[in-house]
Amino acid sequence: MVLINGKLTSTVDVTDRGLHYGDGLFETIEVIQQQPVFFAQHIARLKAGCLRLKLPFPDSALLSAEVAQLCANIQHGVLKIMLTRGSGGRGYRQPDVISVTRYLAIHPYPNYPEPYQQIGIKARFCTARLGINPLLAGIKHNNRLEQVLARAEWQEQYQEGLMLNIHEQVIEGTMSNIFAIKDQQLYTPDLNQSGIQGIMRQIILQQQPVKVATISPDFILQADELFITNSVIGVWPIIQLEQQNYAVGSVTQRVAQQLAAEKQRECAAC
Amino acid sequence: MVLINGKLTSTVDVTDRGLHYGDGLFETIEVIQQQPVFFAQHIARLKAGCLRLKLPFPDSALLSAEVAQLCANIQHGVLKIMLTRGSGGRGYRQPDVISVTRYLAIHPYPNYPEPYQQIGIKARFCTARLGINPLLAGIKHNNRLEQVLARAEWQEQYQEGLMLNIHEQVIEGTMSNIFAIKDQQLYTPDLNQSGIQGIMRQIILQQQPVKVATISPDFILQADELFITNSVIGVWPIIQLEQQNYAVGSVTQRVAQQLAAEKQRECAAC
Repeated sequence: MVLINGKLTSTVDVTDRGLHYGDGLFETIEVIQQQPVFFAQHIARLKAGCLRLKLPFPDSALLSAEVAQLCANIQHGVLKIMLTRGSGGRGYRQPDVISVTRYLAIHPYPNYPEPYQQIGIKARFCTARLGINPLLAGIKHNNRLEQVLARAEWQEQYQEGLMLNIHEQVIEGTMSNIFAIKDQQLYTPDLNQSGIQGIMRQIILQQQPVKVATISPDFILQADELFITNSVIGVWPIIQLEQQNYAVGSVTQRVAQQLAAEKQRECAAC
Repeated sequence: MVLINGKLTSTVDVTDRGLHYGDGLFETIEVIQQQPVFFAQHIARLKAGCLRLKLPFPDSALLSAEVAQLCANIQHGVLKIMLTRGSGGRGYRQPDVISVTRYLAIHPYPNYPEPYQQIGIKARFCTARLGINPLLAGIKHNNRLEQVLARAEWQEQYQEGLMLNIHEQVIEGTMSNIFAIKDQQLYTPDLNQSGIQGIMRQIILQQQPVKVATISPDFILQADELFITNSVIGVWPIIQLEQQNYAVGSVTQRVAQQLAAEKQRECAAC
């Protein structure tokens, strides 16, 4: 089900700048018993993205009402919010008056074949390299060809691929952020030049002492524990990366429990 | 007028991956008396882009027939061809079977207020910096937020903005390629790490000895002549860049004449 600017629809105008230039931003939010989880944090990131892209943020009350309309009767699902710069003529120049397109869609919660939170996942290093782009780093914008190309490198054999940047530093998964544990210390890549600052990552950084650092593939391979995070999956431990095996360790379990506790504080039904 | 997959329409499916991820490519082609100019070269670049993005190229005869349909009765216009990865579910993973969206649109030829080919233009250096991204450099893909942000830096005071990369090297204009002349020698930036390899640039490189080089803003400021190129404007000399003034010089005029001659060979009506 898709609402565009408040109307149920299955199409968008051909002049939309989202289509032509990826000129927009999005959020992907877990919905539990009608409630979009960590909604305030997602909206805050979306606002920060709008500021960076000079997109006017829509009326908050209107957006919240549309979100509530879409999430009514949803027991467990995924809400996608996308904002684009709306319609425009040919060429990069934006219209003098920007009329943002509000796209809201509700999807079923993914039916993962295994309880990956408990048993962990297999991951690989991707061949596609992330560029270095401080202008756009951190925000969840619609220019996502790097992730598309990386995700096209495998089918079902892995649950995630880790992406390096052109300097061979580990940055993120194609759809997730990555954390490594070495000698009980948590590490996660610095995302000032590439990558998306995930909401789960942000909450973990508030809950735990984490070293935000430049991280090599060797460091990742020699870690004691590894896990990935995103707003739909929560925490997935990595139990195999290339030829290396990892346990689902105690630090990963503690992080997952603290994240679950925060989710419960935020959402009684969680 | 817009044709999508052969049908006249004003909308595209909300699930199109062009909208969600900028997962596509495009070409912008001048049309003179029903003929898309340098069509073979544009199609060749589009095919190269498809190869890079692992997009299947549509049936060539079908595409050509749709182009002819759209260009019928067009005296002077601009044809936009866009290919996207078509519809897909939520997430970066592409569908197992990709059904490319063929988007064709015809636009009026822009009504420039001045004969910029003759009198030249004013340009500026943009603040927005291009990232370093060998994975996507060169091709004309739909991930164009860098150009959108750069073009948003001014309104009408200039006709183009020159973009530097994060290493402070000059790469291109927001909608054009840049050439500099020093001591009768032509120079243009290397585009292996950022930027779009324009069709006009490519033809000039075939016609003239041009040094493809790393180019600093100082080199550009100290050049004897400067000009920009794209498929719609042809050659526009730069007569003012920041505080620096330039003549419309003899090398620029020679390049413009040779490009015009090539255009006439290709297209009797040009």
